[in-house]
Amino acid sequence: MTDTITISVDAMGGDNAPRAVIHGAHLALQDHANARFIFHGREEQIAPLLNEFPALKPVSVIRHCETVIAMDEKPSQALRKGRGTSSMWMAVQSVKDGEADVAVSGGNTGALMAMSTFCLRPMDGIARPGIAAIWPTLRSDIIVLDMGATIGADAQQLVDYAILGSALARCLFGHEAPTVGLLNVGTEEVKGLESIKEAGRILADASGAGFVYHGFVEGDDIGKGTVDVVVTEGFVGNIALKTAEGTARQVGKYLSNALKANLMSRIGALFAMSALKTLQKRMDPRTVNGGVFMGLNGIVIKSHGGTDEIGFKSALNLSYEMAHSQLMDKIGDTMKRFPVKPVAPNPESETEAKPA
Amino acid sequence: MTDTITISVDAMGGDNAPRAVIHGAHLALQDHANARFIFHGREEQIAPLLNEFPALKPVSVIRHCETVIAMDEKPSQALRKGRGTSSMWMAVQSVKDGEADVAVSGGNTGALMAMSTFCLRPMDGIARPGIAAIWPTLRSDIIVLDMGATIGADAQQLVDYAILGSALARCLFGHEAPTVGLLNVGTEEVKGLESIKEAGRILADASGAGFVYHGFVEGDDIGKGTVDVVVTEGFVGNIALKTAEGTARQVGKYLSNALKANLMSRIGALFAMSALKTLQKRMDPRTVNGGVFMGLNGIVIKSHGGTDEIGFKSALNLSYEMAHSQLMDKIGDTMKRFPVKPVAPNPESETEAKPA
Repeated sequence: MTDTITISVDAMGGDNAPRAVIHGAHLALQDHANARFIFHGREEQIAPLLNEFPALKPVSVIRHCETVIAMDEKPSQALRKGRGTSSMWMAVQSVKDGEADVAVSGGNTGALMAMSTFCLRPMDGIARPGIAAIWPTLRSDIIVLDMGATIGADAQQLVDYAILGSALARCLFGHEAPTVGLLNVGTEEVKGLESIKEAGRILADASGAGFVYHGFVEGDDIGKGTVDVVVTEGFVGNIALKTAEGTARQVGKYLSNALKANLMSRIGALFAMSALKTLQKRMDPRTVNGGVFMGLNGIVIKSHGGTDEIGFKSALNLSYEMAHSQLMDKIGDTMKRFPVKPVAPNPESETEAKPA
Repeated sequence: MTDTITISVDAMGGDNAPRAVIHGAHLALQDHANARFIFHGREEQIAPLLNEFPALKPVSVIRHCETVIAMDEKPSQALRKGRGTSSMWMAVQSVKDGEADVAVSGGNTGALMAMSTFCLRPMDGIARPGIAAIWPTLRSDIIVLDMGATIGADAQQLVDYAILGSALARCLFGHEAPTVGLLNVGTEEVKGLESIKEAGRILADASGAGFVYHGFVEGDDIGKGTVDVVVTEGFVGNIALKTAEGTARQVGKYLSNALKANLMSRIGALFAMSALKTLQKRMDPRTVNGGVFMGLNGIVIKSHGGTDEIGFKSALNLSYEMAHSQLMDKIGDTMKRFPVKPVAPNPESETEAKPA
């Protein structure tokens, strides 16, 4: 008998909540029979939905919350209004209280990050949390972080992201020592910002301790899958993610226009239907759904707000996987194996402190 | 009779130089009969190639240079070695001397930017040059800058890029008042860096003077073509460009794998051949080839180094277009119409200077 994994769910988060959320849990349960669910939100809406999914009902509990955080609420406003009372906060609180292994919400990212940070607090030795994305590439899925939890990052924060990202890669992909690259621009001489160069030096020294440092990578290395973990500051990571999403949509649109162009192309599309369906599935953002909040004392998964039950199923499966593979332990483990102190001393002040 | 446009060409720049360069010029001449060429480089290599293209020869002159800048040379090294002597420098020098309207090189970007800046100097009122990319979108081509000429940008530099980019959009797309967006991340509250917010305020005040300020845009707005000109700092711009290139290649590869998957899909691909060819052409990076160096006293186009004659033709056609539509005049014109002083006073020191 395997142990159960308890997933704490903000049932009210997302455009199609709570129906898509509950339906998604029903689908996730089919993949993972030992999953258990705590649904936070309006009981009068959740209870009838659970009645529609008879297999889900006995493995679920409902925690009624009146307050729901809107998709457009500002983080500070959401925190004032929803702390201790909203479905979003309570979903995270369940992880803090140890009654759930992981929390999932499709609510607004800023509010969820603010609440998660406030409720769970950053781990010892990690200055600020990051959001990791699981990014499909030509080789395999990889991890890219930070996707915008924090704007700007110094060398130590980039090193923290490398630790967190490689722990996640170990959990999800089973690589014992995933490769890590720092996202940078290509010009040889001007090679990027001082913080990135400094992080590169620290990571090169620590390479081997739970990850292998590959060096700098460029934007096109993401799609190639050159490394298992791409580390970057949150502003750049967010722009890269959205630009890639935009490009994939653009190319998909070109393709569908091309196949509608004339009779011959329409006939061709009919013949190639199953192959094109595979392609569509491959490019379906719902199949990889979930930003992982990392660096806090507990795991929180952000699902896309606009997704349907398939997307929520993916986010719930991802959260199951992470709890099951004991992500928090793996992070702690990587940090312990890391020979550099979490807070690197300033080399300049060190020099000054030397006796003349 | 139309006036001629003289293009100064670094015949030795690029992996397939000088053959691809000269061949590309031959093709560009077919599009623009009034183009004239000055080829800088090794005469013993260029002269036999011109003999192969009888139409090109009479409208071309060769300027012999012994020194060639290597693709992997560091900018400072290239400058030391090639100043006043290399084919790359001399191509730019021709613009400075007024004997050419525009310069084109497929040589290494860092070296070309260093030489162009050193030789042509930044325009009055522009602190640092930028590299603009012409980016195909679902709506139409748009301009995105800076692609990495400069790492980091303060508010005034972002405003400069908006001026330069909208002048380029006026030239290439003929919009009298192109729309301008500042690239930012989506989180409402934390909306990006102070420099971007400040640039947004300046552009909002100046909206209407040769461009219309749209506001912030996100990464996926690039592929949608939400605005005519996307303005960002060079590090982010470079990562966005390369990430988009990587994603387009990735999706293209998915498609070709899907169409090879089985007999039916292969038959389908045969039927859809012409449509797929159109798609391929649409996604061909050679058809949009050329980074535009802007903000200097003269126009320099950087062609992809690894391209062939088709790519060089595109870069040469682009340079023709820019000279023909009088880009430099349009930039000056936009700057004049811009109500904000090129060098914005620091608001803090202003406050301090106020009498108590």
